[in-house]
Amino acid sequence: MKDYLPLIEEALDRYSGSFDLPEMFVRSMRYSLLSGGKRIRACLCLACCELVGSRAEDALPFAAALEMIHAYSLIHDDLPAMDDDDMRRGKPSSHKAFGEGNAILAGDGLLTMAMRLLCDVPGQEAAKKAIFQGALEMAAGQSLDLNVTARDRASLQRIHDFKTGALFRAACLSGAFRGGCDAADASRLRTFADKLGLLFQMTDDLLDQEKDEAEDKLTYVTLLGAERTRQEIQALTQDIRALLAGYEGEAATYLLTLTDRISTRKA
Amino acid sequence: MKDYLPLIEEALDRYSGSFDLPEMFVRSMRYSLLSGGKRIRACLCLACCELVGSRAEDALPFAAALEMIHAYSLIHDDLPAMDDDDMRRGKPSSHKAFGEGNAILAGDGLLTMAMRLLCDVPGQEAAKKAIFQGALEMAAGQSLDLNVTARDRASLQRIHDFKTGALFRAACLSGAFRGGCDAADASRLRTFADKLGLLFQMTDDLLDQEKDEAEDKLTYVTLLGAERTRQEIQALTQDIRALLAGYEGEAATYLLTLTDRISTRKA
Repeated sequence: MKDYLPLIEEALDRYSGSFDLPEMFVRSMRYSLLSGGKRIRACLCLACCELVGSRAEDALPFAAALEMIHAYSLIHDDLPAMDDDDMRRGKPSSHKAFGEGNAILAGDGLLTMAMRLLCDVPGQEAAKKAIFQGALEMAAGQSLDLNVTARDRASLQRIHDFKTGALFRAACLSGAFRGGCDAADASRLRTFADKLGLLFQMTDDLLDQEKDEAEDKLTYVTLLGAERTRQEIQALTQDIRALLAGYEGEAATYLLTLTDRISTRKA
Repeated sequence: MKDYLPLIEEALDRYSGSFDLPEMFVRSMRYSLLSGGKRIRACLCLACCELVGSRAEDALPFAAALEMIHAYSLIHDDLPAMDDDDMRRGKPSSHKAFGEGNAILAGDGLLTMAMRLLCDVPGQEAAKKAIFQGALEMAAGQSLDLNVTARDRASLQRIHDFKTGALFRAACLSGAFRGGCDAADASRLRTFADKLGLLFQMTDDLLDQEKDEAEDKLTYVTLLGAERTRQEIQALTQDIRALLAGYEGEAATYLLTLTDRISTRKA
């Protein structure tokens, strides 16, 4: 099985150290960016680039930009004024480690570094636009989540379509555009991203419920119940398998395995 | 005398309403973006585009992106964890109007909207890179400012070179690149931007001192004294006049007048 992680970690380390910036600013950005994580968005980007016939390496700046944007969103999301989380990936969250001011700036810096990094990639306007459209929708999703009062499925779906779905779409589409996909591929991989994002969210909600962390939150489990959520996870997994059925090679196998892992994940 | 403001205000209103995004997210972004201000960065961008021989209108997306980036930086800078300012441009600052969480997201959204907006401009890679390099250095400057302990001129200069200078450079260079400038123009307008940024900061420090707002802050006035600061302002104004001497037309007149206004400003 393909392993994109070493490529991604090396690229994140290299790109995030390549700008001449003040020490604390760089240290606080790298603290969050280089703290592990599954790198699902970066992996999706590389795999979709390879799936449509190019080398995974070609999409590395886009994959790195996606992880920078994801890391910025986690830093800001953990702030006291947002989710107020003290821990992230097994260590103190950014504002606990560096103070709130530095955490806000580390997030701002990572988002800005993502766009600055892509300036060094000539052309590729469709791939760049996919990334920034995703980043805008993701921030919109955080805003929806913060201000939501409705407790129905349409509201929940809209929040996640922006909050999680947007970066999954950005990942798959930027990789596919970088790989030179045609319109049919783009349309298929967009649907794939939407379904995988929903699958990811539903399994996340199931895990939260098992940890008793979801009591009064609006989640698929509190809304549909655990049993119905599990049924929808099964159906989504089948849909995704069908969407990928026309592709061959290592990247296709990778995406199928990733889907199964998300579908059955325990953490 | 040329007046770029109506063009800029119309463009900011139009661009910031052109994305399909949730209501609170858009409202909180527009609250800060469309609250007046001198629009110096946008004006510099349009004037430099015209100065090198193109139409000011051609640089409008870049000018708007600069004001979005400037507005985001003010929102985040006003947060309790940063400068903790309750008022901005005569009305409650973003976190006072919408709460801290929404203010953080409004800032994130404006920065992201700036980059998303520029995705709709084909090509123009040098102008785009100038903007994002400036945005990265500006965030770096905020970080320097937050963490500075030294109280010498070199430290102060470095903070302002990042914090104020970076967006002034981004404004002049993006406009000039969009206008099709040659390397000599770019080099001259970069120096112009640096000197104008410094002039702006020094007059700002003088005004703060007159309002008794600078007592224990590291500023040019606390470091050099008011008299010496005034002398340096005079010298900078002369330098800038010399830099602009080779240019003719309305944009050159505009930039000279703007320099005099900054040099003698009372607010």
